Amino acid sequence: MTFELAGIGAAAGIAIGTAVVLEPASMEIPDYSVARDELESEEQRLRAALALARDELLRVREAIPKDAPQDTRLFIDAHLLMLDDPALRDRPIALIREQHRNAAWALHHERERLVEVFERMQDPYLRAKREDILQVTDRVLRHLLGAQVPSLKTAAERIIVASELSPADTVLLKNGSVLGWVTDFGAATSHSAILARSLGLPAVVGTHHATRLLRSGDQLVVDGEQGTVLVNPGPELLAEYREMQARRERRRQLLEEERHLPALTIDGTAIRLFANIELPEDIEWVQRSNAEGIGLFRSEFLFMNRADSPSEEEQYAAFAQVLRALPGAEITIRSVDVGADKLLADSDLQLYPSGLNPALGLRGLRLCLRRPEWFRRHLRAILRASALAPIRLMLPMVSTVYEVQQTRQLIEQLRSELRAEGQKVAEHLPIGIMVEVPAVAMAAHAFAGVADFFSIGTNDLTQYALAVDRSDDDVNALFDPLHVGVLSMIQHTIAAGDAAGIPVAMCGEMASNPQWTALLVGLGLRHFSMFPGAIPEVKAAIRATSVEDAKVMALAALAGTSELFAHVDDIET
Amino acid sequence: MTFELAGIGAAAGIAIGTAVVLEPASMEIPDYSVARDELESEEQRLRAALALARDELLRVREAIPKDAPQDTRLFIDAHLLMLDDPALRDRPIALIREQHRNAAWALHHERERLVEVFERMQDPYLRAKREDILQVTDRVLRHLLGAQVPSLKTAAERIIVASELSPADTVLLKNGSVLGWVTDFGAATSHSAILARSLGLPAVVGTHHATRLLRSGDQLVVDGEQGTVLVNPGPELLAEYREMQARRERRRQLLEEERHLPALTIDGTAIRLFANIELPEDIEWVQRSNAEGIGLFRSEFLFMNRADSPSEEEQYAAFAQVLRALPGAEITIRSVDVGADKLLADSDLQLYPSGLNPALGLRGLRLCLRRPEWFRRHLRAILRASALAPIRLMLPMVSTVYEVQQTRQLIEQLRSELRAEGQKVAEHLPIGIMVEVPAVAMAAHAFAGVADFFSIGTNDLTQYALAVDRSDDDVNALFDPLHVGVLSMIQHTIAAGDAAGIPVAMCGEMASNPQWTALLVGLGLRHFSMFPGAIPEVKAAIRATSVEDAKVMALAALAGTSELFAHVDDIET
Repeated sequence: MTFELAGIGAAAGIAIGTAVVLEPASMEIPDYSVARDELESEEQRLRAALALARDELLRVREAIPKDAPQDTRLFIDAHLLMLDDPALRDRPIALIREQHRNAAWALHHERERLVEVFERMQDPYLRAKREDILQVTDRVLRHLLGAQVPSLKTAAERIIVASELSPADTVLLKNGSVLGWVTDFGAATSHSAILARSLGLPAVVGTHHATRLLRSGDQLVVDGEQGTVLVNPGPELLAEYREMQARRERRRQLLEEERHLPALTIDGTAIRLFANIELPEDIEWVQRSNAEGIGLFRSEFLFMNRADSPSEEEQYAAFAQVLRALPGAEITIRSVDVGADKLLADSDLQLYPSGLNPALGLRGLRLCLRRPEWFRRHLRAILRASALAPIRLMLPMVSTVYEVQQTRQLIEQLRSELRAEGQKVAEHLPIGIMVEVPAVAMAAHAFAGVADFFSIGTNDLTQYALAVDRSDDDVNALFDPLHVGVLSMIQHTIAAGDAAGIPVAMCGEMASNPQWTALLVGLGLRHFSMFPGAIPEVKAAIRATSVEDAKVMALAALAGTSELFAHVDDIET
Repeated sequence: MTFELAGIGAAAGIAIGTAVVLEPASMEIPDYSVARDELESEEQRLRAALALARDELLRVREAIPKDAPQDTRLFIDAHLLMLDDPALRDRPIALIREQHRNAAWALHHERERLVEVFERMQDPYLRAKREDILQVTDRVLRHLLGAQVPSLKTAAERIIVASELSPADTVLLKNGSVLGWVTDFGAATSHSAILARSLGLPAVVGTHHATRLLRSGDQLVVDGEQGTVLVNPGPELLAEYREMQARRERRRQLLEEERHLPALTIDGTAIRLFANIELPEDIEWVQRSNAEGIGLFRSEFLFMNRADSPSEEEQYAAFAQVLRALPGAEITIRSVDVGADKLLADSDLQLYPSGLNPALGLRGLRLCLRRPEWFRRHLRAILRASALAPIRLMLPMVSTVYEVQQTRQLIEQLRSELRAEGQKVAEHLPIGIMVEVPAVAMAAHAFAGVADFFSIGTNDLTQYALAVDRSDDDVNALFDPLHVGVLSMIQHTIAAGDAAGIPVAMCGEMASNPQWTALLVGLGLRHFSMFPGAIPEVKAAIRATSVEDAKVMALAALAGTSELFAHVDDIET
């Protein structure tokens, strides 16, 4: 039977091959009371299982091939860190001791609690942690219960279909000659999706039903761009896909050859291309992409996988690592952007869910200004890093001029403080703002007086401009960065920046879509920042654009005379 | 001891008098099992208490003085309706029968459940229902438990300080010569606040601590405009307040004398003033206010206090009542504007809380288009009402042109359907949109092709434009309709309407603040719609404004050169 399965395209490219469906390792978690005199040994059983899982991961880590993506090691390190986290040891042990329950139940109980916490988070990056928790605890539970680890050894020359893949699994995939994979769970930001992109393997995640609907032996066409899995296509369809696959491969080679060409439009306007990164380890990828520098270095990674806040020293060291790896490049660090529904684990931040609409609540700079001691530590680390390289500081979720003024005052105060302590600080640290609040876009001329640069965050800007939460299935069809109103805000921001002589970049997802490159050039955008993998296609789009044509296109889009409005589903009558 | 207590100013004016603190009627709710053979009589006890509460309310209703505000009767009717609601009878009875529990516990249990549902609602109008539930169930519980109803008889010539006041209590206040009141709970939209405005009594609600901090006999200055209660002021301060009180009274008389003057600026530009209403009963107030018509008739009232949806016939009858009361006036009916977190009781709507950010989710027109059968019934009633008077239809929470087109198609289809059935429908029903989504404001030129008029909803527009949920205490200091970006959206909407030759009104709270009238006139606004009580002051502001001066003011505000930015609290250092 031929049919199509839809999911989320996690890594571009087309894979054509035979399905190998891995049965999910379903484990029954026993629940029983433990006699008082056996509590000590039950606790030891948990500690032993944690140690076994740890040894196992260390062995996988040693087996990582030299040519595996850098991320692989990193993700396995993240799992190792998690195994050392008190949350996975102390709380289950307390449950064993206080409630006299068995170790597997106690660990499972704590895992469910953590998973629930992470499920409530909005940030896809943090939500991905949920998977890590499941994968790490699965590993420990298997040791506690003596269950088998599913083997991927048989999976050569095949397309893997699994409920979920852990970073450790992907090491084995790399060893074999797997062509791609399809999972039930996961999102574009899942670790397995990130690894798929690094490995250059087509993958579709979040299909919900793949392991239930697919059988080992099915012929699959995995389109990692469209996010579709075609099952048992006829010979004609298959031939079409093979042709498409070949075309894309030629395209990829062409772009690879053009890596070193400048990002110039047909009529000679230079466009600057920067990379967005989430982790210090992403730098290698940045170097491969030929980006001019880093347009958005998210600092949230500093606060991940830990229950406390990092010290100023730790933060400084992490920034220094990135700056030393990219000497001379322009690097824009964004101060931490978290909200009331994120980073719940950080006791120093005293975060608790508040407000009926967290997206319209205490997040980004708003939150930082309300946790001044915590914010000072963060800003001091950034100021010290400014002595190492010409960095820029970008403030997220700004809504008023006063917030920026207040932050500038605080920075001046910290600068004096650091100098008095004998610390080095750059003479000048450019301070810019994210333009992601609609009123800020429309008041950009007023913000030009307090900001050294603008960077348009199209995801949040679109979300607020259209009053559409993109993570809400009921309305996400209305999410549309091409809405005339959103384009008008982008255009106004660029025009205000140009008039004031301050640079305007875009670091939202919109900047990474080559279909929209010409439109953005037409709106006047000259600085694009995106995930490194998107740079080659965007550069190609720039090289195929003329500024004059792009301006005409932009004017039509702003007038609402092009067909750019989002359509909701037809009314069910 | 002199001190000041802050709350929410619920009704303007200053009252100076002596506090009478009403102790809250704290009731212990007993919880016990009822023997199987006594279940029948326990059920009867509940029914009897409900009947007693009903009789009592009917007696209060008969005692309403002729000159009491229309609302009084209405609110008491709402309580009577609630007493007849199956929710307060059938579910507690089920608890008695199934769980063998006593009647008071069962009623209290159901009340807590309902209160929780209403507490989660965002709409202040719906949240006010929470109080009604508490007040009605209190009345029944007192009968069940033989508790005393607190008496207000002693409260002549005094300022009442109470935990909360029910509409029935206010009837007694009207009989006496109470000067004003202060409550712990409540909001500007509480029923007691609405009644205070109708009665012309200064009131401050939501003080949290009034009954704890004030003692009977304290001298109080209640400033219903500022929302403050000054306790035991010295003679000088008291004299100042008496002078202020006298000034305000002279002002009120002046405005009353000017009721019939036209809303013309100094330089002769005519401004049109309309009223916002929530209930058919508000019409009398509209007539007193000399409004030109109704700029916003919220249709949500149709769906209140009931578990099912009203039939087309019921909806038609309710609209007809309003239209007949205001013959010849322009009346703009807004189709129902509810969201996923509201109207949970309506089983036909199949609403359930969804999404992490309900304000960015399925609400207003979005929801209606997803419940087509339900929406058809609503639109058919409005179409039939259009045969009675020249009404206009306004669509809430529009974000795309396509949504409007889709609604227009549906209306055309329903028009033909109604005609085929022999029903009368107006030849032309003007269809306009609320401009409350930022991208719609900035794309107003594109919406001019599908809308016959615009009405700017400044509350939601500001909320989305600044990404600030006004009900979130952590960020509401940032809520500021005077932000340059918000003003720019308002200006763009007005300019687009003018360019397309379609009328632009404003029906958000901003329109009702006389301090901002000149600015709005300067931005080009010519149609204001507000709660009827605000009309006299806004008209006075218009009559003191010159369009030329207002334009200069507006230009400065748009340029960000005036001091209009919101300030957050200083950083705690």
